Amino acid sequence: MSAPIAPGGTIGILGGGQLGRMLALAAARLGLKVHIHAPQGDNPAFQVADAVTCAPYEDEAALRAFAEAVDVITYEFENIPAAAVALLAGMKPLKPSARALEITQDRWLEKSFIAGLGLPVAPFANIETGHDLEQAEAAISLPAVLKTRRFGYDGKGQIMLKPGDDLARAWRDLGKVPCILEGFVEFFAEVSIIAARNADGDFTAHDMPRNVHENHILRTSTVPSGLPAKVEEQAREMARRIAAALDYEGVLAVEFFASGEKGDVRLTINEIAPRVHNSGHWTGAACVTSQFAQHIRAICGWPLGDTARLADCVMTNLLGEDVLDWQRLAARPGAVLEIYGKREIRPGRKMGHVTQLRPGGLS
Amino acid sequence: MSAPIAPGGTIGILGGGQLGRMLALAAARLGLKVHIHAPQGDNPAFQVADAVTCAPYEDEAALRAFAEAVDVITYEFENIPAAAVALLAGMKPLKPSARALEITQDRWLEKSFIAGLGLPVAPFANIETGHDLEQAEAAISLPAVLKTRRFGYDGKGQIMLKPGDDLARAWRDLGKVPCILEGFVEFFAEVSIIAARNADGDFTAHDMPRNVHENHILRTSTVPSGLPAKVEEQAREMARRIAAALDYEGVLAVEFFASGEKGDVRLTINEIAPRVHNSGHWTGAACVTSQFAQHIRAICGWPLGDTARLADCVMTNLLGEDVLDWQRLAARPGAVLEIYGKREIRPGRKMGHVTQLRPGGLS
Repeated sequence: MSAPIAPGGTIGILGGGQLGRMLALAAARLGLKVHIHAPQGDNPAFQVADAVTCAPYEDEAALRAFAEAVDVITYEFENIPAAAVALLAGMKPLKPSARALEITQDRWLEKSFIAGLGLPVAPFANIETGHDLEQAEAAISLPAVLKTRRFGYDGKGQIMLKPGDDLARAWRDLGKVPCILEGFVEFFAEVSIIAARNADGDFTAHDMPRNVHENHILRTSTVPSGLPAKVEEQAREMARRIAAALDYEGVLAVEFFASGEKGDVRLTINEIAPRVHNSGHWTGAACVTSQFAQHIRAICGWPLGDTARLADCVMTNLLGEDVLDWQRLAARPGAVLEIYGKREIRPGRKMGHVTQLRPGGLS
Repeated sequence: MSAPIAPGGTIGILGGGQLGRMLALAAARLGLKVHIHAPQGDNPAFQVADAVTCAPYEDEAALRAFAEAVDVITYEFENIPAAAVALLAGMKPLKPSARALEITQDRWLEKSFIAGLGLPVAPFANIETGHDLEQAEAAISLPAVLKTRRFGYDGKGQIMLKPGDDLARAWRDLGKVPCILEGFVEFFAEVSIIAARNADGDFTAHDMPRNVHENHILRTSTVPSGLPAKVEEQAREMARRIAAALDYEGVLAVEFFASGEKGDVRLTINEIAPRVHNSGHWTGAACVTSQFAQHIRAICGWPLGDTARLADCVMTNLLGEDVLDWQRLAARPGAVLEIYGKREIRPGRKMGHVTQLRPGGLS
């Protein structure tokens, strides 16, 4: 076991968006420095970093200099080019590991990995050739969702197929890139687990939020979820098994569909993300330890923090022009407002979030 | 009334220590950028700032460039040279105001101002000449404390005098600089109010902590204080009157001695500080709005935030080598650890703090 990274050490973060920014703020509170690596663009994390590298992920010299300047490397998004991952992981500890990245970068590998653990996922089939397409059509009945295996997020790179829809045409519309066809899961709620694991194998999970999406983008996360404690315990246990199987270090998000009825709820794993997650943003306002602080602790070999929650809450994303309402939101009793420092408002862009702590949860 | 400083604006902060750092972190969460101005030295706030100016407070060109780059100027300490204050306040809004600084930089002006409001302070006398010394000796009976009027902090620049001690000699020991002699107040507890006021005249105060000092340095702040609600209400009201009289914008700390007995507690104002305060650090772990976020809101013309407290707590300063215990502290249930990123440990130096949220206060 390597020694923990003590206060004064430097964390390298790949990605300069809001997740990198919130990780940087959490690291600073723990006395750690942050070096952000991101390509040219609007990188709000640069505003709070001790050092920055602004270069493409293909610039080997920049990657090397970045790795040399830091004690550990983490990331705010999973679509990091494989060559960059290989180079960096050879120079400094990369956490979560290259294997966790490889699996979660590819929906087919991810689903196969989860199914291999015996955990519940929707029926799925890989599509790389016309032959695969025919087999998938025979195996998975519609409704179903066709998704690119790589680079999808917030509903990008996926097409919903109703009974009678033309799968071959949908695949053409996605450019015939490798895809998976996933059987559609009827659900009455979406929930997620924000789990953490460190090198000692310690495991934590924050309370489970219930998530509402609009146009494939998270709108609200509400805690507690309203689902039975037994179901929440099952979800935690699945996250624990996934983290253990990956020998995981860091925060891991697991998203679930909840189907059935109140007395007989069935969980299906939708996807996993090897990073802090939008559905855990409320932890920064409502918990002893936020998901951001927990990720920093885990990748630095620190003891994991207490995930206890101090209040019930609802986190609402501020998308696009929602953020212009900041003065009214800032005046609300019990509201914790967080704005990401992005230069430009675009429709649907995540500009900030507000966590409404419920008066019932306040002392 | 000037328009508020919207997200994306830049706050200039004079001072690069832990208070400037915590202000910068709070500003970032609200989508505001921070530019720190501090002289050469160990400036942990630089690590989290969007821009920095490293120059003496006497460098006029640097002050001008700093003022031009920001939308509002604030500070983390009150001993800013008067010429720098005058220059900066002429170029950009300085908040809290130059008048608040002028009064709180000088113990004699401060005590006179408070006494002028009819609020309770210890008997005090100004000493600038040998004649003043004689008058002070006649007016204030020992025990008493001789303090330099300016530049004192954490017990520096003060001498305790017991009955029979030689006042003239003590004054010589302090270099015969302008001093005040303060009658010693017997007390059973020290408490403080972390108040805030904005340009609209809105006022808030966080719950009152009870503070324990060791060697003149704050050791712990405990909330609730254990004093009767009526006494806390009196303390808030005094802070409100001070803030109103200064037409104050920002966070203001007022420290009190509590004397008498439980049923008949008398408060005496010890000192005021025109800034966020060590005895309010627990607000960052335990409240909807921290003192740091509240200061940023107040100086930017935002609505003040909700000061509601989510848990009982004890904040303990980590002085000198205390911080080496970070791994054990990080593992404690209910503990929120904050480390300041200073390069060097020195005996008694404030290196961080830990806020222990009490299980009783947790949901």
